[in-house]
Amino acid sequence: MAETNLQVLLRRRPKGAPVPEDFEIVETKLPEPAEGEVLVRARYLSLDPYMRGRMSEAKSYAKPVELGAVMEGQTAGEVVASRAPGFTPGDTVLGGFGWQRFSCVSPARLFKIDPKEAPLSASLGVLGMPGLTAWVGLEDIGRPKAGETMVVSAASGAVGQVVGQLGKIRGCKVIGIAGGPEKCRFVTEELGFDACIDHRGDLNAQLDAACPEGIDIYWENVGGAVQAAVFPRFRDFGRMVMCGVISQYNTVEGADSFGGAPGPNLGAVVRKRLHIQGFIVSDNGWPRYPQFRREMLGHMAAGKMKWREDVVQGLRNAPTAFIGLLQGANFGKLVVQID
Amino acid sequence: MAETNLQVLLRRRPKGAPVPEDFEIVETKLPEPAEGEVLVRARYLSLDPYMRGRMSEAKSYAKPVELGAVMEGQTAGEVVASRAPGFTPGDTVLGGFGWQRFSCVSPARLFKIDPKEAPLSASLGVLGMPGLTAWVGLEDIGRPKAGETMVVSAASGAVGQVVGQLGKIRGCKVIGIAGGPEKCRFVTEELGFDACIDHRGDLNAQLDAACPEGIDIYWENVGGAVQAAVFPRFRDFGRMVMCGVISQYNTVEGADSFGGAPGPNLGAVVRKRLHIQGFIVSDNGWPRYPQFRREMLGHMAAGKMKWREDVVQGLRNAPTAFIGLLQGANFGKLVVQID
Repeated sequence: MAETNLQVLLRRRPKGAPVPEDFEIVETKLPEPAEGEVLVRARYLSLDPYMRGRMSEAKSYAKPVELGAVMEGQTAGEVVASRAPGFTPGDTVLGGFGWQRFSCVSPARLFKIDPKEAPLSASLGVLGMPGLTAWVGLEDIGRPKAGETMVVSAASGAVGQVVGQLGKIRGCKVIGIAGGPEKCRFVTEELGFDACIDHRGDLNAQLDAACPEGIDIYWENVGGAVQAAVFPRFRDFGRMVMCGVISQYNTVEGADSFGGAPGPNLGAVVRKRLHIQGFIVSDNGWPRYPQFRREMLGHMAAGKMKWREDVVQGLRNAPTAFIGLLQGANFGKLVVQID
Repeated sequence: MAETNLQVLLRRRPKGAPVPEDFEIVETKLPEPAEGEVLVRARYLSLDPYMRGRMSEAKSYAKPVELGAVMEGQTAGEVVASRAPGFTPGDTVLGGFGWQRFSCVSPARLFKIDPKEAPLSASLGVLGMPGLTAWVGLEDIGRPKAGETMVVSAASGAVGQVVGQLGKIRGCKVIGIAGGPEKCRFVTEELGFDACIDHRGDLNAQLDAACPEGIDIYWENVGGAVQAAVFPRFRDFGRMVMCGVISQYNTVEGADSFGGAPGPNLGAVVRKRLHIQGFIVSDNGWPRYPQFRREMLGHMAAGKMKWREDVVQGLRNAPTAFIGLLQGANFGKLVVQID
């Protein structure tokens, strides 16, 4: 193979919002798989908000990417060479590593997938980590029941799209929150949510209108002002599935980059018997990936699970795309198609 | 029976902290049990923080006491007359109703108890609603594991005493928080907590010293500054059992009397996968009372469950005692011995 690898490295740690100079793009030698490893050629790279945490040295649930190292991320592609049992060249796989064209990975978290089931990029979105996040969070924490009212923030995003549609499949009334009329229209007209609130407008008035009965389940992707508007509207026994707080990820380093302590007290949690639980899909999600994928493929075949992707061409454009993701510039699950 | 009833009524709704004039003490005719009812003579009345909520018209999980009605509360005493199957005069019972000497109650929530098992007043504290609250909250939400660090606010109070001792029985390191050196000494020397923090001192410094490893379980009875100091110290997968926020109960009416919305976001809940859950023991606690009582009597017989009561003599002193309870003036489970 005369090909070279193309990699995006972390050059320096961002102060606040990342800028292109925080990244470095390099061409390097094609890596060689060690015994027990698989060499994967990535066709798509998933870009996700959690990556902002990996760029920071602040204490979090995972180690930061080291300076000069390849940016962390999941890819889908095909096996080029294998020194691990069960994988052969040509296999389509989910689970390649990093913002790079080629990676050598251990097969522990490599899932062989059937390319005929769905477009490959879907395995990074609706059928990938964001979809699995939606599914696990609803199964374990949201526990939607027919007739309940569910509010989903970042509703047109990778996780939000799936959350809301799963809520509809379970018989909930589902209200999305998204940025701008185009995203809101997509959420209601394409995804079939019952309504969608534009967070650039008056949140309180729109929530009053959309869910006068209150909120049973809130899927939290954003934090900040949206959370503050939603929280007092919880009904008794409400559940807040805390998946992320993207509005806080670019807060200045040194402070708790996830927003720090709560307000002075959470008294309403007692009165309403609220259940608030944070989760990270990597804790216990992946062993359930086969079950998740089977169920989701069924929903897709039945026309009950749509998805929208925002596909950026070329790995060299990954940094700019990622910077936009943190500002809500993407529309749908952001993936990079690797040339 | 020539006796009369003695009752404490709600005369008006308090503005902020209740005052004696919010109550009215009246002598009335002895009530007659209707068919299916039991007439109970109360020997002890339980005074508990939740009663502050019943005095208010603010929306909560239970209806407010109406103006001019008997203050709500649980009593322990004996059956005087019965028109319900299974109860006969002389039976010792837990579950009489209200701040009054005599009450006619339906037997649905009346528990016949053996007066030889424990002093009668204990059935309003360690063996009563506060004890059941501690037990249910730990079983369902706290889920203590040996070696974990548990922090208990209002540690010398009715619920806190039991929470911490159950934590020790489960093998936890248990840190209490209480007001003043006398209560702190009781918590460590009598109840056997590993340490006790005086909330009148520097909370952060004392928490640093007592639990440098962080906190796995926080039992929340108080809210406010104590919660704000504890929250950032949660370890991954921490649990906050939200039982009450007494520091907020006297906030001015009209505002959410339980303290309203949280701060702008709860981002650390994601990062640390925290589980925060409010609960009210009346939702699902009482059907488990027999099991709870059996277990607790076993702990008491083994010398592993102590309790301290603050016994006020005479129903006429109930209002003043209750006002003090909301200010932390009591020391141990507050009960009124009814003359």
